[in-house]
Amino acid sequence: MNLKPAVAKNALQSGVYLIGAGPGAFDLITVRGAHILGKANVVFCDALVDPKMLEWCPQAEIIFVGKRCGKYSTAQQFINRQLVLATKNHDIIVRLKGGDPFIFGRANEEIDALKSANIYFEVVPGITAALAACAELKQPPTARNISRTLKITTLPSHLNYEGQDTQIYYMGREELPQIALEMIAQGYPLSTPVCLVESVSLPHQRSFGTCLGELLHFQQEEVFHEKNPVIVLIGEVYSNVVHDLTPLIPLMEYRIRTSSAN
Amino acid sequence: MNLKPAVAKNALQSGVYLIGAGPGAFDLITVRGAHILGKANVVFCDALVDPKMLEWCPQAEIIFVGKRCGKYSTAQQFINRQLVLATKNHDIIVRLKGGDPFIFGRANEEIDALKSANIYFEVVPGITAALAACAELKQPPTARNISRTLKITTLPSHLNYEGQDTQIYYMGREELPQIALEMIAQGYPLSTPVCLVESVSLPHQRSFGTCLGELLHFQQEEVFHEKNPVIVLIGEVYSNVVHDLTPLIPLMEYRIRTSSAN
Repeated sequence: MNLKPAVAKNALQSGVYLIGAGPGAFDLITVRGAHILGKANVVFCDALVDPKMLEWCPQAEIIFVGKRCGKYSTAQQFINRQLVLATKNHDIIVRLKGGDPFIFGRANEEIDALKSANIYFEVVPGITAALAACAELKQPPTARNISRTLKITTLPSHLNYEGQDTQIYYMGREELPQIALEMIAQGYPLSTPVCLVESVSLPHQRSFGTCLGELLHFQQEEVFHEKNPVIVLIGEVYSNVVHDLTPLIPLMEYRIRTSSAN
Repeated sequence: MNLKPAVAKNALQSGVYLIGAGPGAFDLITVRGAHILGKANVVFCDALVDPKMLEWCPQAEIIFVGKRCGKYSTAQQFINRQLVLATKNHDIIVRLKGGDPFIFGRANEEIDALKSANIYFEVVPGITAALAACAELKQPPTARNISRTLKITTLPSHLNYEGQDTQIYYMGREELPQIALEMIAQGYPLSTPVCLVESVSLPHQRSFGTCLGELLHFQQEEVFHEKNPVIVLIGEVYSNVVHDLTPLIPLMEYRIRTSSAN
């Protein structure tokens, strides 16, 4: 792949670039993000970023900074300090985050640290996992006569019933029965379609179809791999696609049957 | 700019590629999107896409298909038919849409037409204008102690008060006083910060800061250029940045004064 746009961007200003790596696939980063990675001296990289993404910056020193889905790192203050310190010795510093750097990425704290230290920074947006999952399912989250609003959240209590809006949930794999319970209590029918997309856009991506009623009894550890992120898409708009996906409950029953047979 | 990832994508399958161009800047398309544009035989391009974006596909036949912000096209069925017909004579057909193809882009109708005609298609997500605006403002739409949910909509009645969620409104330039009225009626304080970003990521981008109380009396035609899209970002989370932006109301008063002086 050899991309030569007709107009080259001016030389990069020294500073910190918060770049969204996108959902995982190495070519779902923006052209700008890949270009800046290619100029970086040092890259502070989230554990969630796929290693292939680092082929955009073979010249850079890579510093992995923890944080796997669902597990808080105690090191956020350490990362903030490291970013600021790096500007003493380096010209172009990249903070590479999975998805979009501003969607549930704790960028606020890093930005506050950079502002306090009077360091120049830019933000390069990335494809957030929710929209990448929609693209993979080939189903827009809104549709004229079904849903005109999309809500993106990490809190089950923020999912609620308003004219059947579509709701997309991040970091929800351990709370799936609770999510279903909250939504049913708020008026969503048991039959409301739910799509679950694991490791969006990566070669090991898997998509499952279910409904809120089934999700009540779902044990995520039976199906999902421990370290893979899962995006949960809920709404009537998915009725078109949910039946084309791997059914969730039969899979669980199959796994339970085979594991008790062993 | 010369991007050579270490692993090239396999040859493209014949069919239609719905590609998100991103918010406007030519390098905020994904690497995958730019790569496919470079292989396209024909590109059906939204009027909202910046002409510079077409430098990614000098080899392709370009067909502009109307639709400017806020103005419906009666030609959606014509576009659907053209996409299907193009597959008779061409190998790689691109449908290039501003932002993300699935956020308020009427992709449903095009997808239905492609499915009915049994045509292979893929969707390449793009940076949606809301998240590009957040990157430009350098302010994440969610923050741990202020807002944990982001709502994206085109309907004023869908904006509402739930623990001060952040709300981002598309295609709202003609409805700004109505948006303010609905939100104030639902409990938002008059002082709730509002950011308005016109032509996100393009050289003529402008950002304005205001609050719901001021927005009640705002006449958009005094400030915004007729054809430019405007993203409206509303929520307490913007209190950090709103005062650094051009104030909206003093600008209106200045314009009114100077135009009556003429």
